[in-house]
Formats: sequence, structure tokens, C-alpha cells
Amino acid sequence: MFLFHRMTFDILILGCGAATPTSRHNPSAQLVNLHDKLFLIDCGEGTQMQLRKCKVRFQKIDHIFISHLHGDHYLGLMGLVSSMHLLGRQSDLHLYGPPPLRELVEINLKYSESYLDFTIHYHPLQNKESELIFEDKTLTVHTIPLKHRVPCTGFLFREKQRAFKVIKEKIHSYKLTPSQILLLKKGEDVVLDNGYELRTTEACITPPVPKSYAYCSDTAYYEKLIEVIRGVDLLYHEATFLESEKERAKFTFHSTAKQAASIAKQAEVKNLLLGHYSSRYKDDLGFAEEAREVFENVQIADEGERFEV
Amino acid sequence: MFLFHRMTFDILILGCGAATPTSRHNPSAQLVNLHDKLFLIDCGEGTQMQLRKCKVRFQKIDHIFISHLHGDHYLGLMGLVSSMHLLGRQSDLHLYGPPPLRELVEINLKYSESYLDFTIHYHPLQNKESELIFEDKTLTVHTIPLKHRVPCTGFLFREKQRAFKVIKEKIHSYKLTPSQILLLKKGEDVVLDNGYELRTTEACITPPVPKSYAYCSDTAYYEKLIEVIRGVDLLYHEATFLESEKERAKFTFHSTAKQAASIAKQAEVKNLLLGHYSSRYKDDLGFAEEAREVFENVQIADEGERFEV
Repeated sequence: MFLFHRMTFDILILGCGAATPTSRHNPSAQLVNLHDKLFLIDCGEGTQMQLRKCKVRFQKIDHIFISHLHGDHYLGLMGLVSSMHLLGRQSDLHLYGPPPLRELVEINLKYSESYLDFTIHYHPLQNKESELIFEDKTLTVHTIPLKHRVPCTGFLFREKQRAFKVIKEKIHSYKLTPSQILLLKKGEDVVLDNGYELRTTEACITPPVPKSYAYCSDTAYYEKLIEVIRGVDLLYHEATFLESEKERAKFTFHSTAKQAASIAKQAEVKNLLLGHYSSRYKDDLGFAEEAREVFENVQIADEGERFEV
Repeated sequence: MFLFHRMTFDILILGCGAATPTSRHNPSAQLVNLHDKLFLIDCGEGTQMQLRKCKVRFQKIDHIFISHLHGDHYLGLMGLVSSMHLLGRQSDLHLYGPPPLRELVEINLKYSESYLDFTIHYHPLQNKESELIFEDKTLTVHTIPLKHRVPCTGFLFREKQRAFKVIKEKIHSYKLTPSQILLLKKGEDVVLDNGYELRTTEACITPPVPKSYAYCSDTAYYEKLIEVIRGVDLLYHEATFLESEKERAKFTFHSTAKQAASIAKQAEVKNLLLGHYSSRYKDDLGFAEEAREVFENVQIADEGERFEV
């Protein structure tokens, strides 16, 4: 029997440490893979080396999303752009981030006297309200305004609802017209000329429910983001500190593991993924333990690991 | 018997790959250690992680020398400065490099809204002729103008001649005066009141001969640098290509291993250290083989290795 091919939709962690990289953790970067379409979120120092280590063909990345202009989230971008150039890239590259990102990239290209053979399209982001910043046949990307010391946005990846597949033999046996087929593809039942009500459940293969992924780093505890990310399948929320450092979290506009879990619970997400661990903690298990007191489905990010959305 | 303590003078390789980092090699960076005074030469992406991996206390680095503004030689600088700041640095930092280095660092600090608790002193370098850019009691640093696609200088570290140590019992037995002791310390023989010619070889411990290290990356084959580096103990000279890619070396203003060896031979250096290998080569042994056909004492750089000057 014909089955819908489940699309790959996973997140590869390239770095999940906080501001100062350690021997255990690299600065922030993640690769979103939606059925071999690759999107990079944040690009801390060393991201290009991490991509190599994980054997990612990084010339396939056409869209890079930078959450904010703290070094641990973008200082690897210039090196990656440079390597893309030196390795012969010709296809366009889209950079999404705070408006000064253009100036930062261009000044490096200027002084290194690099003349790219590809075009960079800059997409400056505001962080007042969620906006649609990318869309194609299979997904949309929206920003998620966050609360940090400098302007900062998260990113929400939503897979689109795929069309129902009408079963060939049903087309023949019911002698379906093109307009009837179109309705079925949209997921609507049709009434045939003889009065028979043909339901999609009989005539079609039902596509899988679309999935969604929200990336929220860096941010203080911020209830306004709950409505934007409500019900997502996977939420990455920063957990720079444990609750014992709650005051420090507030002061530095970061979150504790417990606060991340509280957001996950209120937003009724399916799974929570933690990361952006402060270098002060010797291991990351404490983050999961603390979060699980509030929310059950908690995973902890680590370099090189993949998480299915 | 009292012996002069030989000072440490070694080079730690943090990165010795060329423009595109690979899984084997990081971009350029080296740590010069002169008796626990640490100097950083170049600072490619990932240098701070390499320093951590090598367990270097990087807050002890007060002077960073950037040869030129190609990304593989400076893109790790902003991350290192940021980590120095976040880890509480208060002591001054000196940055030596092409004039736009200041602008590149300052623009990153501006947009990340970082307000350092330490002062950065910028030392803009010209690359027309060799100049003295640093001096203290134990060493001098001069620039070495190189020939590259953008303005580029190497760096020459020269240990200073240390004073002779006058043996205490000789001071007593010959009843030496302060002015006689001073002459001996300078390495001069003295004639005593009784006509006896007291030689330093009898009265003093002779200090070791001062050593010197020259860093030359990146550069085309460039005979003008020979006089600047003549007779150094250790020469690091880039060898991006093998002789089979000689045309490509010329076109990109880089050198072959054979050309590096030819410079070493003409400059009568004691040892040659090769690095800055193009990512096209699967192993680095070919560089040493090719160079040894011209010059005997060849070593090849690798990450994490130390080379005594």
C-alpha cells in the first residue's frame, strides 16, 4: 500500500554553550534539516569546523538566521562566508539578522579584499513583533521577539500542510473529475453525481500532520513568547543557568532551566530541548533534572547530536 | 657550580592550515613563550578553543600580533577579546596589525554593546620597511614586510643579550670595585690595580647566546626578507603549496615548500618550520620532503606541537 513518505525534520546541534566556549561546548549554532533543505540558525565561532566534523555539505545552506549580535551567536559567520567563497560558491546566500549584520559582514569583506562570486541578500529583522521572514512550498519561518540585553529574535519553523494524495484506482473506479480531485487534494470530501459522499479517508492517503520547531535563544524569562510558540512540536529554549543563579539570570537577561520548562508548560509544547549552558557548570544533567520538575519531556542539547522535531 | 638558567623560548602551534580550515588543521595562530611571557601571533577562527585545549592561561597574553586582514589570520580575535572580557580581564591588551584592525574590533564591540573593563592599545603597522614595534628587558619584536595580496607583515622576535653573572667568590678574592663589576657584567675584561688581566671567562658565568624567531606568513617568494631574518635560529615560513602548484602559488601570493627552503638557505637560518598548508593536500609529509632537497633542517608544524627556538 502506498504510504506518505515522512519528511525528515531534525535539528543538528553544532554548538550549545554560552558566551565563553569551553572544551565541552562550542558557541551557538544549529542546523535545521527539512528533507535535505538546510537552514543554519546562529553561527558562533567555529561553526564551519563543526559543520565539517558533522560532514554537512555546507554549500547547500542558502539561508542563515542570526538571532542577535553577541559574539557567541555570529562570530563564525565571516569565516563560513569566506570558506563558501573560496570553495567556489556561486549561488545566492540569504542572511537574516539585526540590521547592522550587513555592516559587520561587509567591513570584513572590504578589508580582506574579497570579491564574492555569489550575492548576499540581507534581510534586516525588527524584534517588536513576530513576522514572516521566509516561505516556500514546504515551510514558513517567523521571528519570535525575545527579551535580551540587545535586540534579539528567535525563529519559528513551521512545516506546511501537504496535499492529500488521491489514490489512483479511486480516480478510475469513481471516474473522478479534475475539480473533484482538486477538492480531495485539499482535504475536502466530495459528493459524486450519483449522490455518493466520497470521503478523503476512503479516496486519499492522508499526509502527516505538519511539525513545528521554535528556537528561543537568548532570552530572559519572557511570557510574551508563549502565544507565538504555542503547541510547537519541539521548543529549544535557552537555559544558561540553574535556579540557584536566578538573580544572575535576571541580571544578564538569560533564563534558568526551570524558567525554560515553565515556558514550555504554559505554551503546551510537545518537547523541550535545553541548551546555551553557562561554562560554570561542570555537567549538563542538572539542567534536565531541574526542568523535569516542571515539564516532563525534556532533552538536553549536545554537540553533534540530532533531535527529531 | 652556578649555571645560567636557560630561558624557555618556544613556539606552540595553535593552527597551521591555510584559508579554509579542515578537520586536520585550524587557521593560523601561534603562541610565543619567552620564559612565561606569552605573545600571540595571528588569531584565526577557533584560536580561543585551541588555547583552552592546550591549557594556556590566555589572560597572560598582553600582546597580539596580526600579520594581515585575511580571515584565517584574525577572525578569532573578537571571540578571544570577548572571552578575556567575560572572564574578568582588567589588564591592558596591545594589538598590533594593519591600521583597519581597530575599526574591525571596535565595530564588533559596538554592536554587541560590550564595554570592556580593560584598555586596548592599537599599534597600526605599515609594511614598507622593518620597524621595532615592541621592546622590553628581555626581547625586541620587529616587523618583517612580506609580499602578499593585501598589506602583510611577519614578526621577528629577538631575545636580548643577558648580562654576565659575576661569580661572588671572585668579587671577594679580587676585591672588585663596583665599576669593575659593571664592566664584567657587560662582558668586558678588566685590568686590576696590580696589573692582572681578569677575563670574564674566569670571573663570570657566561650567559647563553640570545635566540631569535622569525614568523613569515603569508607571502609569495620574496628575497627582500632575507636580510631581515638573516641567521635566525628558527624561521617559520609559509608553504601553502608544493612545487607542482608553483604557478598557483605565484598567482595567490603564496609560497611553495621549495621556495620556503630556498629563503631559509639564503638567509642561513638554523632551522626551518613549515606551515599554512593548503587544504588540497591529504598529508603534510610532502612539504618536508620537498624542502629537504634544498635545506636540511626542516620541521613541519602541527596543531598542539611545541618547537624550541
